[in-house]
Amino acid sequence: MSKPLEGIRILDFTQFMSGPICTLMLSDFGAEVIKLENPPIGDTTRTGNILDQGVSSHYATRNRGKKSVAINMKDPEQRDLFLELVKTADAVVENFKPGTMEKFGITYELLESINPRIVYTSISGYGQEGPYAGKAAYDATVQAESGIMSITGEEGGRPTKCGGSIADYSGGLVGCIGTLIGIVDAQRTGHGRRIDASMMDALLLCQENMLSMYMRNGKLPKPSGNRYPAASPIGDFMCKDGVPIMLNISTNAQWKAFAEAFDQPQWLENPDFDSMKNRADHFREVEAEVNRVFAMYDSEEVVRRLEEKKSIFGRINNYEAIKNHPQVKFRKSFVEAEYDNGVKFTVPGNPLRISGVEHEDVYRTTTMGQNTIEIMSEVAGEAEAHRIFDPVMARVKEAYANVH
Amino acid sequence: MSKPLEGIRILDFTQFMSGPICTLMLSDFGAEVIKLENPPIGDTTRTGNILDQGVSSHYATRNRGKKSVAINMKDPEQRDLFLELVKTADAVVENFKPGTMEKFGITYELLESINPRIVYTSISGYGQEGPYAGKAAYDATVQAESGIMSITGEEGGRPTKCGGSIADYSGGLVGCIGTLIGIVDAQRTGHGRRIDASMMDALLLCQENMLSMYMRNGKLPKPSGNRYPAASPIGDFMCKDGVPIMLNISTNAQWKAFAEAFDQPQWLENPDFDSMKNRADHFREVEAEVNRVFAMYDSEEVVRRLEEKKSIFGRINNYEAIKNHPQVKFRKSFVEAEYDNGVKFTVPGNPLRISGVEHEDVYRTTTMGQNTIEIMSEVAGEAEAHRIFDPVMARVKEAYANVH
Repeated sequence: MSKPLEGIRILDFTQFMSGPICTLMLSDFGAEVIKLENPPIGDTTRTGNILDQGVSSHYATRNRGKKSVAINMKDPEQRDLFLELVKTADAVVENFKPGTMEKFGITYELLESINPRIVYTSISGYGQEGPYAGKAAYDATVQAESGIMSITGEEGGRPTKCGGSIADYSGGLVGCIGTLIGIVDAQRTGHGRRIDASMMDALLLCQENMLSMYMRNGKLPKPSGNRYPAASPIGDFMCKDGVPIMLNISTNAQWKAFAEAFDQPQWLENPDFDSMKNRADHFREVEAEVNRVFAMYDSEEVVRRLEEKKSIFGRINNYEAIKNHPQVKFRKSFVEAEYDNGVKFTVPGNPLRISGVEHEDVYRTTTMGQNTIEIMSEVAGEAEAHRIFDPVMARVKEAYANVH
Repeated sequence: MSKPLEGIRILDFTQFMSGPICTLMLSDFGAEVIKLENPPIGDTTRTGNILDQGVSSHYATRNRGKKSVAINMKDPEQRDLFLELVKTADAVVENFKPGTMEKFGITYELLESINPRIVYTSISGYGQEGPYAGKAAYDATVQAESGIMSITGEEGGRPTKCGGSIADYSGGLVGCIGTLIGIVDAQRTGHGRRIDASMMDALLLCQENMLSMYMRNGKLPKPSGNRYPAASPIGDFMCKDGVPIMLNISTNAQWKAFAEAFDQPQWLENPDFDSMKNRADHFREVEAEVNRVFAMYDSEEVVRRLEEKKSIFGRINNYEAIKNHPQVKFRKSFVEAEYDNGVKFTVPGNPLRISGVEHEDVYRTTTMGQNTIEIMSEVAGEAEAHRIFDPVMARVKEAYANVH
């Protein structure tokens, strides 16, 4: 059985995180993703974070499995070859600041006139139009603008960003959904679509429940630590051995099982605790009770009791615990990204399992422009590809001589 | 121009957040999403959060635009009608605890034998197999297990969850990507796929950069407030009027423009500040300088200077600011979800804009089982649909008489 996206070709102008995550989700399932990178350095993550013999962990995490072509879109001859490649492709994806592709003379109308089936996806901080369209955006600044910082952090503390790059990530996933919707449509109608994904709007949808409550009742939510306002006990509770456990007990059935797990029948007779709403309203009393009980047992015993009653909880893992996590090991959630010079990085794999697709243990990862001649020969012929791109690749080689 | 997913039918067993987000991304672009809900209450979010005349904000946020069918899968007659519906569908999506669908006698093999084109997507906390597969999971507990809490929160503080439901959300988006990949494949080969999305793995991929660094250097990352370890200044800085601004200045070019914006040429001559790595290593000195300068100006002036030099920043918005945000207004990022009784909730719309698709201003939102007779008549005939489901709907009506 072949991979589900085999034969699909993506021309990928993306860099940093949001766009590369979008195209990673496609390349992992068989799409040929050709990263088009601006020489000499290309995607600046190629020089970021851990560098080993000139190759980077930062680039590997989200670009493993893709091809790389060096192309200077300001050079008309090279740009024309990009337009030739468009004839062979299913989608073009980019995450420049809005307006950048237009500076290269690239619009959806042009791409559509060359290949009506093409899907053209742009991922940006705030969308392609409107008063914020021209603003450059990074994950942290979109987290700030989106309101999600205003509901994250300690109670009484300042707005806090999530340590994961959730704006970039969700913008990339949403862009991938748009790209696939466009491909589904093109398969049926012979005609593609223009896709415009906003990281800001992606984070608004992530907060749909809290935002819709605010839009109705006008009550401004604030950072609430590890609590969630609509139910209790939700949050972290300390066991006798100093290990915290994250609980999420919301429905009456869950509350009953939880009370039984810790032999506290009087909780079930307390009218303040007799509905989800009442427990949320009396959350300080609920939490005091949970803290009292958890302080009696080491975490191993707390976990045993929670598991016996199928109560919903999580261990609060640090990265060492993730490395040794039984489910992470079982599911092979990490894979290797290997460059041709033999340097390997261990990186998170794909969160999807799809029948008939064996994920690789080791993904090939390219150096800057590694596939330039091969791909450009397709559209320019080999001699022309060498004439135009050998000097480009010489500049790349020179620039990377200084990257360690 | 029709919507890109028109004619695609999704049978949707999902509830709570992750699954409903997956199918929302499909229904917004024309897929017919038929929610199959267990009578009498159905998706428990139907009784959650703000209730007005028996209908809920919680349900509306992620289920607007979908149809609703009441079906008791433990009743063989009703279950057989579900199997008839499978013949008419492109995908089945569910987010029960792994093993639940099997209890109803539903496996991918069975669905595939009925309709080879079917895509069968499951979204769960930890995936369909392995030592954690049987664990029920909520957003907060998966955030804890995934390690993302261990890098979120104040420096020196405890691990903190993100206030947005990022585990549910990213699990839902990833499940949607899997579903669409399966549909693309089925269109080409006539054969669908089994899709298994893990919320835990979705959050690992969100942390790919930090995790890959840990896997290489073994340095355990901790909560670092609003900083990001690899560059500086990244974080919130207070202006003279007490308004904080989120900055993300990383490259040398950005640092130069930022120094110019605030007339600080000496920053560019300081060898401690002369590369991204040096600024990250001397982040306390960098931050002290930024705080000194921001304290001289009100936020309006700070923003003016940042905008003039195209420095990358964000306002740290609360929900009131989101409601009045110029880009949110321009892009019409909120829509209305209206029930048939006239109750409307204002909820975040779709983060994608796709050419040829006009998003609605108002999305129809269904009460429990509202489309039961209509949909079941297709496969059972109208008389049989009434015979089997009128009693079911009577129970629904009775149960909802007590929901206010």
